[in-house]
Amino acid sequence: MDEPSLIFPAQEYRARIARLQAAMAKQGLDALLLTSPADVFYTTGFLTRFWESPARPWFVVVPIAGDPVAVIPSIGADLMGRTWLRDIRTWDAPDPHDDGVSLLADALAQLVAPHGQIGVPMGLETHLRMPSLDFEAVRTRLAPRRFVDATACVQRVREVKSEAEIGKIRASCTIAARAFDRVPEFARVGLPLADVFRDFQIALLSEGADWVSYVAGGAGRDGYGDVISPAGIAPLQRGHILMLDTGAVKDGYFCDFDRNFAIGPASDIARRAYAALWHATEDTLAVLRPGMLARDVHHLLSVGLRRRNTTPGDGRLGHGLGITLTEWPSFTPLDETPLREGMVLTLEPGCVTTDGRIMVHEENIVLRADGAELLSPRAPQELPEVSA
Amino acid sequence: MDEPSLIFPAQEYRARIARLQAAMAKQGLDALLLTSPADVFYTTGFLTRFWESPARPWFVVVPIAGDPVAVIPSIGADLMGRTWLRDIRTWDAPDPHDDGVSLLADALAQLVAPHGQIGVPMGLETHLRMPSLDFEAVRTRLAPRRFVDATACVQRVREVKSEAEIGKIRASCTIAARAFDRVPEFARVGLPLADVFRDFQIALLSEGADWVSYVAGGAGRDGYGDVISPAGIAPLQRGHILMLDTGAVKDGYFCDFDRNFAIGPASDIARRAYAALWHATEDTLAVLRPGMLARDVHHLLSVGLRRRNTTPGDGRLGHGLGITLTEWPSFTPLDETPLREGMVLTLEPGCVTTDGRIMVHEENIVLRADGAELLSPRAPQELPEVSA
Repeated sequence: MDEPSLIFPAQEYRARIARLQAAMAKQGLDALLLTSPADVFYTTGFLTRFWESPARPWFVVVPIAGDPVAVIPSIGADLMGRTWLRDIRTWDAPDPHDDGVSLLADALAQLVAPHGQIGVPMGLETHLRMPSLDFEAVRTRLAPRRFVDATACVQRVREVKSEAEIGKIRASCTIAARAFDRVPEFARVGLPLADVFRDFQIALLSEGADWVSYVAGGAGRDGYGDVISPAGIAPLQRGHILMLDTGAVKDGYFCDFDRNFAIGPASDIARRAYAALWHATEDTLAVLRPGMLARDVHHLLSVGLRRRNTTPGDGRLGHGLGITLTEWPSFTPLDETPLREGMVLTLEPGCVTTDGRIMVHEENIVLRADGAELLSPRAPQELPEVSA
Repeated sequence: MDEPSLIFPAQEYRARIARLQAAMAKQGLDALLLTSPADVFYTTGFLTRFWESPARPWFVVVPIAGDPVAVIPSIGADLMGRTWLRDIRTWDAPDPHDDGVSLLADALAQLVAPHGQIGVPMGLETHLRMPSLDFEAVRTRLAPRRFVDATACVQRVREVKSEAEIGKIRASCTIAARAFDRVPEFARVGLPLADVFRDFQIALLSEGADWVSYVAGGAGRDGYGDVISPAGIAPLQRGHILMLDTGAVKDGYFCDFDRNFAIGPASDIARRAYAALWHATEDTLAVLRPGMLARDVHHLLSVGLRRRNTTPGDGRLGHGLGITLTEWPSFTPLDETPLREGMVLTLEPGCVTTDGRIMVHEENIVLRADGAELLSPRAPQELPEVSA
């Protein structure tokens, strides 16, 4: 009786399932068992903030042929019923005696022959969102069926976005860009960083974000200490560099880019670091192509920074983006994932400015056959100054 | 060099660790391995929205004696260094060859003798936030040490809140109450529900929430279809019942209560349902005492609704609350957890109003020796009407 809950037409989901099933066939999988919010959303379109409650597990089973089966708590029956899925099995969760274990085991037993293989994402950048004792119970009940790792199967499919997905991420980037444009309206000397974060979240919502799953940042002379801290109560000062980073969400899709602002005139150190970050990004945008490996992007950005006498920061210098704030691959020296057309990625070079201080810079792109297409409007070439 | 990141003084965390260690001793555990955002925050005070990135696992090991050890990605070193913890070991994550496995295994091997037991939350309402293949690798390396379920150990400690925690939850409830008071300013006929949700999130931030991790709700004649859906684009209509439910966060602590509003004069069905929900809650508030079981609360609320010729909804009728939007116990007919002084709980009766429609009502309380103390200001006795 309520309106359908369809971010995309059913055809989009059918195409995803077909791609997953092709990857499953290659790996010899008879079914996929998915438990994460992102994998459930990807296969069904089931979008809710209720994942914030860790109380209940949710399952989607993708068989090697045919449509997925949802095995979910009854509290989600109404919403799942408004997606494209038709086979929805529910139990009254949380149930301390059997929290969906029997229902899930029955579904898997029905869909997978006794000597079949069930794929579950178990590797890098995954976790199983269900009690581990319950997973063991399901595994035992399903013997002699085997449970094997399906990380690559899911990641290689999800990492290449459809045009419909790219459109959603672009919409999210556009909202964030408008909110960044408003930072000079509220960022001023004396305002505690906590209030800057609050005003920025309000700006993101006012500009059209459905919700704001992530805001981080920092402020300090010549840079900031880290990029994952919540805001403290210390006020902005003249001479600070303010950085704001966001994961705003529109229709279930994230943006993830940041912007820097000088509060009053910037120091030479900060201006030089910003220029190095901007130009290292520009160099990389110009040469990025499908067929490169993830680690090549780390190399390109690092070389671009060093060429400008700047020390790259530790850690990855970008990553995939889409249904979650960060997805694979990772731009580290170790990640050998090939870059493919249709990947949505962040370029996120960071550098050390002075002892214990860093600056970071981030853009969002989609990789096309002929190179990078920006999804975030390009940051200004010179570090913008907020009057102070 | 940055300001310390301390939600509470170190003494609060030492008291928590002492309680955990007492529970561990009873169960014969030599260490606890914790991986969830809530457990890491509870033991260390490490507060970040960076959990939104599923890329990296984070570990805290609580030994049977002495302070916890953090084994974390280097991107968190600065922030963890500003908590009370001193033993912080880091690696450069994500690392496709060894994403913290060796570092964690070494820490556990050092803290736990070869025939010792390591507790991990593996049961109801838990999941292990790390790749399951990596957990298997750690388990294999640590043999003959045994990994056993520590769900009860952690839950029985965390479910009883300190006065400091209760103060934080009360602060979060107070912020949400001020935002609910502002709903009549923006909820009006013709406004799409998506915009109502957006304005409500802005109100929560304006009133002092650090961030808004959860907003849900619904609108319809005589009630709504479910309580976990994101907002659609259908506009509010005269005669609708609007319900908004929130998990606003202040200093890492949640509130979780809802409010109902009639858009224009309410129907008799809606007014009767609201009165039944309000009085069933009132009855329960009056008699709730430590020593009752979780299932007794389900019974009290159900009886209160039936006495008023109202059909209770399916599912749980309330739950624990604190560091996450929902915590254990669950007010279902099956949960036999004893209620104890210091528990923070939600009373959340729901009822069926008409075919496919429900209404819900929620308050947040702390259980004292002599009964319930409200943390959310009590909802009005009559369904409030927004002029339309």
